[in-house]
Amino acid sequence: MSIKVLGYAAQSATSPLAPFTFERRDSREDDVTIQIEYCGVCHSDLHQARNDWGFSRYPLVPGHEIVGRVTATGAKAHKFKVGDLVGIGCLVDSCRHCSACDNGLEQYCENGHVQTYASEDLHDHRPTYGGYSQTIICSEDFVLKVPENLDTKAVAPLLCAGITTWSPLRHWNVGQGSKVAVVGLGGLGHMAIKLAHALGAEVTLFTRSTSKEQDAKQLGADHVVLSTNAEQMQAVANQFDLIIDTVPYEHDLNPYVPTLALNGTLVLVGYLGEIKPHTVPMIMGRRSVAGSVIGGIQETQELLDFCGEHNITADVEMIEMQTINDAFERMLKSDVKYRFVIDMQSFHQTNSI
Amino acid sequence: MSIKVLGYAAQSATSPLAPFTFERRDSREDDVTIQIEYCGVCHSDLHQARNDWGFSRYPLVPGHEIVGRVTATGAKAHKFKVGDLVGIGCLVDSCRHCSACDNGLEQYCENGHVQTYASEDLHDHRPTYGGYSQTIICSEDFVLKVPENLDTKAVAPLLCAGITTWSPLRHWNVGQGSKVAVVGLGGLGHMAIKLAHALGAEVTLFTRSTSKEQDAKQLGADHVVLSTNAEQMQAVANQFDLIIDTVPYEHDLNPYVPTLALNGTLVLVGYLGEIKPHTVPMIMGRRSVAGSVIGGIQETQELLDFCGEHNITADVEMIEMQTINDAFERMLKSDVKYRFVIDMQSFHQTNSI
Ligand SMILES: [Zn+2]
Ligand SMILES: [Zn+2]
Ligand SMILES: [Zn+2]
Ligand SMILES: [Zn+2]
Repeated sequence: MSIKVLGYAAQSATSPLAPFTFERRDSREDDVTIQIEYCGVCHSDLHQARNDWGFSRYPLVPGHEIVGRVTATGAKAHKFKVGDLVGIGCLVDSCRHCSACDNGLEQYCENGHVQTYASEDLHDHRPTYGGYSQTIICSEDFVLKVPENLDTKAVAPLLCAGITTWSPLRHWNVGQGSKVAVVGLGGLGHMAIKLAHALGAEVTLFTRSTSKEQDAKQLGADHVVLSTNAEQMQAVANQFDLIIDTVPYEHDLNPYVPTLALNGTLVLVGYLGEIKPHTVPMIMGRRSVAGSVIGGIQETQELLDFCGEHNITADVEMIEMQTINDAFERMLKSDVKYRFVIDMQSFHQTNSI
Repeated sequence: MSIKVLGYAAQSATSPLAPFTFERRDSREDDVTIQIEYCGVCHSDLHQARNDWGFSRYPLVPGHEIVGRVTATGAKAHKFKVGDLVGIGCLVDSCRHCSACDNGLEQYCENGHVQTYASEDLHDHRPTYGGYSQTIICSEDFVLKVPENLDTKAVAPLLCAGITTWSPLRHWNVGQGSKVAVVGLGGLGHMAIKLAHALGAEVTLFTRSTSKEQDAKQLGADHVVLSTNAEQMQAVANQFDLIIDTVPYEHDLNPYVPTLALNGTLVLVGYLGEIKPHTVPMIMGRRSVAGSVIGGIQETQELLDFCGEHNITADVEMIEMQTINDAFERMLKSDVKYRFVIDMQSFHQTNSI
């Protein structure tokens, strides 16, 4: 049985998002149906809508920071009941049997995971559509439990911005006594600061603008270092166990690598493209440059539970669905603190859609 | 008390190596004096003689793959006795109290280690001179015990080429079941193959020349992959836990990174310069690109003991001291299988020096 859903879609790489009615795939026994309450606005949504990476499929309904309530469950879906507060992130399925999947690393599924939008269902091969819509259907195995004690609308960005920074923090064993630096203060960067701080690390923000200092400290940064100031950079040489680099555009890594401690790692989570590090500081300190993408399902649940316990959410600016194109423009200019979240109630506020 | 020593030195970046008589620093209570029997010829020797890295000091006596016999011990040197077969690698001292030194990682000493040549003694500030000479004096703490059962002359290259590849193999936990690839079949590469194989790994050599296949397999490689063949490269995608890249000149890493398994690391041990990896395969497989330099003293002893147990030495071509400049030229053309070693007996064969 399939359902008709109202959403916002890009019809091509050059068309703005606009109302779009579509059919969700038929629901299956292990599915839950979710009424979407909030959906975060990720840079990927914009990149995909505009086909910046060359593999978009249209019509394209973006959105992979989804929070809502369960409205129906399949016959064999037992993890959730109607009314439960749940989330969906970037993944809605994977092969479930490769060694990555077996280890809870569905984001690295060897046979190709199914993304929440612009992907293809493994069973009926119908397109996946994201969270800029009223309702979504998903196997319960890719649905997360959302703590009820948190501000629900500010939970949404945890599903992508949150897990994207949480996963490397956990993989590289950040905890009490760790020294972590974050490059870039946007959606990802502000979550990296909050989470590293909550894990007990001493946190430094690298920024190119002194104006970020007060905000960074309020978010949990212990120090703010101006990356354009050679003296300040020299003062933090050999310091950091982990640098989380959230910058999404081309940038020079060479000022940052020497600030890593012996055996330290700079992990890129936001930039797709060529980097040009010099090997000498890598070789002379056994330093690594690595990449990481989102996180697995189990790890995402762990993040949500951790945020529930530590009362952590994203800093968000709420928008209505109808203003998404403006939000995209503002996001491009980093004019948001720190994540736009769409209130899906807004669908009901105009008669035109 | 200082001693006069005959060696071979470069007097400037442009002069060939030539006989040079010099004074070793005064010996101290913790020193041992070693009569050098063999010294391996490392690419660094050539780079330093020609000031390729810009920090050479002249006169420069190269050589940091030194094997010889103890001829004297200081009053407080108790680890060795006269007649012991010993080795000295790239380091003759370090601060001994930083956290790197405390962890046996003298190669990453935070206060700057003392290199075997072209460095400065920490106590009397006299220059250090390397193993292209008859005799060397060194604190016993930086002297290695050499197993007597090995072919002594072929042990010398273990002190640099060996430890440079051993250290990353150990740091990244290579053992039974590991899949290791080696890029480049020279002094470092041939040791990487032997050592990875002896540790129980399945070993692949990446090469640009089919002519290397038979040699690589004799050294212990299980597979040889032609890195210029896209089909062969595709067939080994997602395979390797560790790639040891020994290539000393600029080269493209992008064909290699996708052959790393999830969480795999490509470690550069030979190239000082800029690299240009694309981040997508790093991000999509949590892959790392790292650097590593030589190894610590304890780790070097561990290597020598391992080689004694497994009867591993380098493949060497013996030369006389007088032919070192020709050997440099041949080394530049990779015309050696796989390491030149100088027989110090050759000092006594001519009257002219
Ligand atoms: Zn996202
Ligand atoms: Zn899988
Ligand atoms: Zn060397
Ligand atoms: Zn030290």
